[in-house]
Amino acid sequence: MDYETPQFFRVIQYATEADRDVVDMVSGSPDWDPPAALREGLREYADAPPAANQYPPSVGLAELRTEIAQRRGVDRDQVLVTNGAGEANHLAMAGGLEAFPGEEVLLVDPTYPYYAGRANFLGAETTAVPVAADGHVDPAAVREAASADTAVIVVNTPNNPMGVTYGEGAMADLVAVAEDHDALLVSDEVYDHFDYSGRFASALATGSAHRLVTNSFSKSLAITGWRVGYAVFPDGEGLAEAHPAAGLHDRARTRHMLTTVTGSRPAQAGVLHALRNTGPEYFERVRRRMDERVTVLTGALEDVGAEYTEPEGAFYVMARFDGFPGTFEHVETLVDEAGVAGMPGEAFGEARADWLRFSLTTDRVDAAADRLRAFFG
Amino acid sequence: MDYETPQFFRVIQYATEADRDVVDMVSGSPDWDPPAALREGLREYADAPPAANQYPPSVGLAELRTEIAQRRGVDRDQVLVTNGAGEANHLAMAGGLEAFPGEEVLLVDPTYPYYAGRANFLGAETTAVPVAADGHVDPAAVREAASADTAVIVVNTPNNPMGVTYGEGAMADLVAVAEDHDALLVSDEVYDHFDYSGRFASALATGSAHRLVTNSFSKSLAITGWRVGYAVFPDGEGLAEAHPAAGLHDRARTRHMLTTVTGSRPAQAGVLHALRNTGPEYFERVRRRMDERVTVLTGALEDVGAEYTEPEGAFYVMARFDGFPGTFEHVETLVDEAGVAGMPGEAFGEARADWLRFSLTTDRVDAAADRLRAFFG
Repeated sequence: MDYETPQFFRVIQYATEADRDVVDMVSGSPDWDPPAALREGLREYADAPPAANQYPPSVGLAELRTEIAQRRGVDRDQVLVTNGAGEANHLAMAGGLEAFPGEEVLLVDPTYPYYAGRANFLGAETTAVPVAADGHVDPAAVREAASADTAVIVVNTPNNPMGVTYGEGAMADLVAVAEDHDALLVSDEVYDHFDYSGRFASALATGSAHRLVTNSFSKSLAITGWRVGYAVFPDGEGLAEAHPAAGLHDRARTRHMLTTVTGSRPAQAGVLHALRNTGPEYFERVRRRMDERVTVLTGALEDVGAEYTEPEGAFYVMARFDGFPGTFEHVETLVDEAGVAGMPGEAFGEARADWLRFSLTTDRVDAAADRLRAFFG
Repeated sequence: MDYETPQFFRVIQYATEADRDVVDMVSGSPDWDPPAALREGLREYADAPPAANQYPPSVGLAELRTEIAQRRGVDRDQVLVTNGAGEANHLAMAGGLEAFPGEEVLLVDPTYPYYAGRANFLGAETTAVPVAADGHVDPAAVREAASADTAVIVVNTPNNPMGVTYGEGAMADLVAVAEDHDALLVSDEVYDHFDYSGRFASALATGSAHRLVTNSFSKSLAITGWRVGYAVFPDGEGLAEAHPAAGLHDRARTRHMLTTVTGSRPAQAGVLHALRNTGPEYFERVRRRMDERVTVLTGALEDVGAEYTEPEGAFYVMARFDGFPGTFEHVETLVDEAGVAGMPGEAFGEARADWLRFSLTTDRVDAAADRLRAFFG
């Protein structure tokens, strides 16, 4: 995979250079406003005394870790604040590959492409487990694919690109697979505030030492550019010293300290203020708006007879159009002839290479729906 | 080395718990105000539209890279914005070890301890070259220590902990050593705005493909907690494909993308605004104040007959007191009995293990000088 010009950029560039108006349904960057308290927090920070501009603890501001720990129902000592979920996933995968036996990373197909990128970068092999017909991961299929060589299993719920949310049973089953194969389940839960099914279940619920949860405020506070994320490590209490998870957190802290040093303090301060001063209305409002966009887009897909996976969470709809597989060529055709830019399924793996992914992070979903109706109808 | 509780923290904690008032001369975090334009930039950013809160380019905001490139007299394509100089040094050392033959990192003794920490983390061996009697690195000694196994040479000018500034000749000689041993010279120049000697010479002056410069705004804008730094890579133009430096920049971009993803955007925006709207008076004023602190502290050292290295740059004074070697025990004695907290020389290596390092990042240098006079006089 060529990380210098990822496939996202290729599509965005094509859409930008198109000779017509195009609705951008490519990126997963929120198009809506962060909470007012976030801006307020940044303004307050701008007036802080000199000392407030100096190094925060490498593990993150203590008050921010406390706030995160309370929300996730874990001990503050389990929380490491990272430079976004990206760094958290890197630390989790690097640490899992180091500590757990085996050199393989299991992924779900289709998958967020940077998981595979990170695994390759770390010298691991990847095995992709195709999703079931309903777009969900089948824990039995993951169990079948897992072996003694499996060190890390990475899942994402609510899921990019499938738009599904894994339920409590599935998460427990996935953790059990990790336990039975002496592996680490890394559960990336960055879309946890965008569950339309009411079924979201964090991997934290299991209390196993074989699961590590990553997250960030990129989506929930609409700030992908701020880079504030975190990892929740297994509770080390009572773990035998020889348990692979025993030194996981310490090693991740060292890696974080010697590579990133610490996350940016203005961003951490702003997020802390936002968490403390943003009511549930904000999160409900943005979730409801996303849910409305889901209805609008799937209405059009229904009208034109497309096959699609009903979104239960996250920002995305995967759809398949008869005779119009989701290749780069067809993505370009859709840009030129319909004025809608989506992502080709092949960017996410093989299982849904025929499909297209549409991101709902635009306030022009209505226009996109009309255009898809006109083009495919 | 134990990175979880570095020796800095140990001393700071001892000083904090002391039963008396202590002047903190331990950390290198500026105690003065960032420029007004930095705060202004952050306030402006706080009001920016939603899109301004989303991912900046992984390599950093284009305008910030342009601003950096213009200041350093390099091409914008050579500049990668990083999460502080810490990440820049990690990328430089990791890349240098990968691309250049050999597995050894040459350091100067005494040295900033995280260079050794990073080298160890990357699996490299380190060799320390003791400084000369005047506290400067002797390029001839570096040449003598270098071998076919040397992949990376790390220097820091103006220097922490010695407080000296390497001149143009020394830098050219160091680059020549790197060239002759097929190694990469990493020159960390974070204190470049704090040169009292007028002699500072960047490694960029040589134009060699064997030198990589790292830097940050942590010291020059008094914002160690913001994490905005950068690396200037060798100009790839005209390099043979087989040259070790040829792929250095591309690989560092990939590593940055897959580990840190990108630096925090509020911080990048604030720094950009500060660079554009801060006149030379600000930098002159803070440099002059530091220079005055140098005079005050060295006056006291002179009075009590201590041996010391005349500071030519950076924030630090290394000093040796007869019969009072710079051990942890003596550091603690100085805290308890003089009310001054410095760093033990042994924290920085062996060559100056008998010495103490005093940081001038406090507005109470006068009090410290009086106390040292009273204690040692």
